[in-house]
Amino acid sequence: MKVEIITVGNELTTGEVIDTNAGFMADELSGRGFEVTFLTTVGDNEWHIEDALQRSQEHADAIIVSGGLGPTPDDITARSAAKALGHRLVLNKEVLQALRERFAQSGMEMPVANEKQAFFPHQAEIIPNPLGTAPGFFLRHKGKVFFFLPGVPRELKHLLTENVIPLLEKERKDKTFFLCRVLKVFGFTESAIADRLREIDLQEYAATLAYLPRYPENHVKIRVSGSSLDDLQKKLRDLESLIRQKLAGRIFATDYETLEEIVGHLLRSNKATLSVAESCTGGLIAHRLTRIPGSSDYFERGVVVYSNQAKKDICQVPEDLLTTAGAVSAPVAEKMAEGVRRISQTTLGLGVTGIAGPAGGSEEKPVGTVFIALASPEGTRSKKYQFWGDREQVRILSAHTAIDWVRRFFLNILGA
Amino acid sequence: MKVEIITVGNELTTGEVIDTNAGFMADELSGRGFEVTFLTTVGDNEWHIEDALQRSQEHADAIIVSGGLGPTPDDITARSAAKALGHRLVLNKEVLQALRERFAQSGMEMPVANEKQAFFPHQAEIIPNPLGTAPGFFLRHKGKVFFFLPGVPRELKHLLTENVIPLLEKERKDKTFFLCRVLKVFGFTESAIADRLREIDLQEYAATLAYLPRYPENHVKIRVSGSSLDDLQKKLRDLESLIRQKLAGRIFATDYETLEEIVGHLLRSNKATLSVAESCTGGLIAHRLTRIPGSSDYFERGVVVYSNQAKKDICQVPEDLLTTAGAVSAPVAEKMAEGVRRISQTTLGLGVTGIAGPAGGSEEKPVGTVFIALASPEGTRSKKYQFWGDREQVRILSAHTAIDWVRRFFLNILGA
Repeated sequence: MKVEIITVGNELTTGEVIDTNAGFMADELSGRGFEVTFLTTVGDNEWHIEDALQRSQEHADAIIVSGGLGPTPDDITARSAAKALGHRLVLNKEVLQALRERFAQSGMEMPVANEKQAFFPHQAEIIPNPLGTAPGFFLRHKGKVFFFLPGVPRELKHLLTENVIPLLEKERKDKTFFLCRVLKVFGFTESAIADRLREIDLQEYAATLAYLPRYPENHVKIRVSGSSLDDLQKKLRDLESLIRQKLAGRIFATDYETLEEIVGHLLRSNKATLSVAESCTGGLIAHRLTRIPGSSDYFERGVVVYSNQAKKDICQVPEDLLTTAGAVSAPVAEKMAEGVRRISQTTLGLGVTGIAGPAGGSEEKPVGTVFIALASPEGTRSKKYQFWGDREQVRILSAHTAIDWVRRFFLNILGA
Repeated sequence: MKVEIITVGNELTTGEVIDTNAGFMADELSGRGFEVTFLTTVGDNEWHIEDALQRSQEHADAIIVSGGLGPTPDDITARSAAKALGHRLVLNKEVLQALRERFAQSGMEMPVANEKQAFFPHQAEIIPNPLGTAPGFFLRHKGKVFFFLPGVPRELKHLLTENVIPLLEKERKDKTFFLCRVLKVFGFTESAIADRLREIDLQEYAATLAYLPRYPENHVKIRVSGSSLDDLQKKLRDLESLIRQKLAGRIFATDYETLEEIVGHLLRSNKATLSVAESCTGGLIAHRLTRIPGSSDYFERGVVVYSNQAKKDICQVPEDLLTTAGAVSAPVAEKMAEGVRRISQTTLGLGVTGIAGPAGGSEEKPVGTVFIALASPEGTRSKKYQFWGDREQVRILSAHTAIDWVRRFFLNILGA
């Protein structure tokens, strides 16, 4: 089934806002096996909206339009749709009543401007919008079905997944099922992953693989399709476990999970606590770990020991070590990890020191030289990395690698 | 002059990659007064590319296509363009030679696949690409001009600004100039800004204003147009200073500057240093400040005192204060700021404590309650904030407000 997506809004054609709705819809739809042919963006211009609607009928079976359903005069999608599809606009009294009630509940009188949102092309069916004032609607025209949704991303996402996709699934003639799973990989490049998965016979699993770079991660999206859901689930499970085997420990999460969530689960289930001493990452590790609600259960403290004095004061890094080995060195990373662990009395202490650039590099220690250390009840380990990229990239890679060390520690694959 | 943008790639129609190229081009073009009518995205499908090219001729004077110029078999934009515009593909020997040399310089033999990148529609003019292997090209057809650019964002940006826009400027019949400036505002909502600027007579300056929410900032984009560049520059200057007056101190940066850059300049020019004690922001302040190259000149250290023990240990917050006033309180924020300043011997010490949620709120101190304190040679100030939003938003608002305190301190408007 072919679907075309049209997004409407002057803020999009002027580039003031990056259109994330089109990509979201394309992702959701293609993940379920719909073929998205064209994505079109037009401004709030009656003539252009009509033209896009006319064009879209040429190849798509279903057309999804978002944006331009608001109360202000520049929102003209409903009117343009009515014109393009040869209907007149009619007032929907129930919608008007519901709108009035919505405002009354917030103790406000409905502005006259909002009345407009209760007018729809004749024969349109309403898609109620629990999250905003603009309901969506759909109508059929010459064997095609047209959906109109509000452009507010939160509302659009809700209506697309709760209403539009179930409706499209019903319309669809081919009853093929699709299942997807995203495996999130860190520590292998895209081509290294492809090399390791090359020998898998994807046809055997009726599967396709997509490689999605999500810096600094690489995601592998598995999609299996078939007519029996049970069979699909088994195929997906089998293929996932085969891929996991081939990528030995490099898959840190699936689907919507993040690395810091996984690390949080591991700390919690191991009744462990963590403290962090950062130099080149400048607080990014602490920031990422504490984004997770409830992280205070296991994250005790972080120190951004940017100056040598701070390294000495807080982590008790010996002065002579800073002079002899240098602030960017394995022994200093180890002392940072041990120092922050000792003062905070946590199970684990993480230490990171390096040269993020652009300045500060030398022949011996070029930009991107980073030392990571983890102090634990089993002792302290450290490792030198040579990361590639600019300041931002070195910081991101360092933080990601350091957080991943905690995961690998609990899985006993830190040395692997 | 009307411009249409076409982006090509299966990764876009499947939603695997969010299309930032289209938005970038729309922004650059509309900022210079070109009217962007349609933005279309199609997959790497010959029929769809041809169709999009055919459609585009209906309203645009210039059409810019990006993507599908790579060496792999799925890159078929050049072939499809030749077909749609009625040309045959011909080998450009100079491009082939340049490609071979490019590979030779890296000590590699050119893969056969790359030969494809030297074939162009007959009569196409080459746009050399110093950043990659795929050159762009343009050709004229029935009074329209078609540009074809590679989809790699870095290459696209370069070719668009260096080649395409200068060419379009020459083609353009109306010789109107445009100047833009983005004023970055923090601390006023969009409607509060609009209220304050309502009385400005924009016609007097031949200007338009666009309000661009960039959470947690609000940007005001000024665009002035006219036929004399000198006159325009004066109008832009006058209008900017009028707006600055009306938004008294809330404009923290212009165009590409960031808040942390501005704060870095102020610290440096005042020969001042900074240390930070964070609780609810969890390292975000330190992370943002240290993103700036050279920040080690003024950023001495940061401490993420997440636990009460850490607040006592590192910032010497008295135990009884944590019991009586609570960890989220003005006196604790002040002690954090003073403590981190004292131990690090910096000019300024910043302290932030609050309830980011989702848990931890109470009737007296709901989620979003945040205390910010700044310790300086002039003493310590603190203030209570009630931020609105989820965990992520509260953290972002807290960090932004705290960093802005440093700017406001140096401008002597902290109390304003």
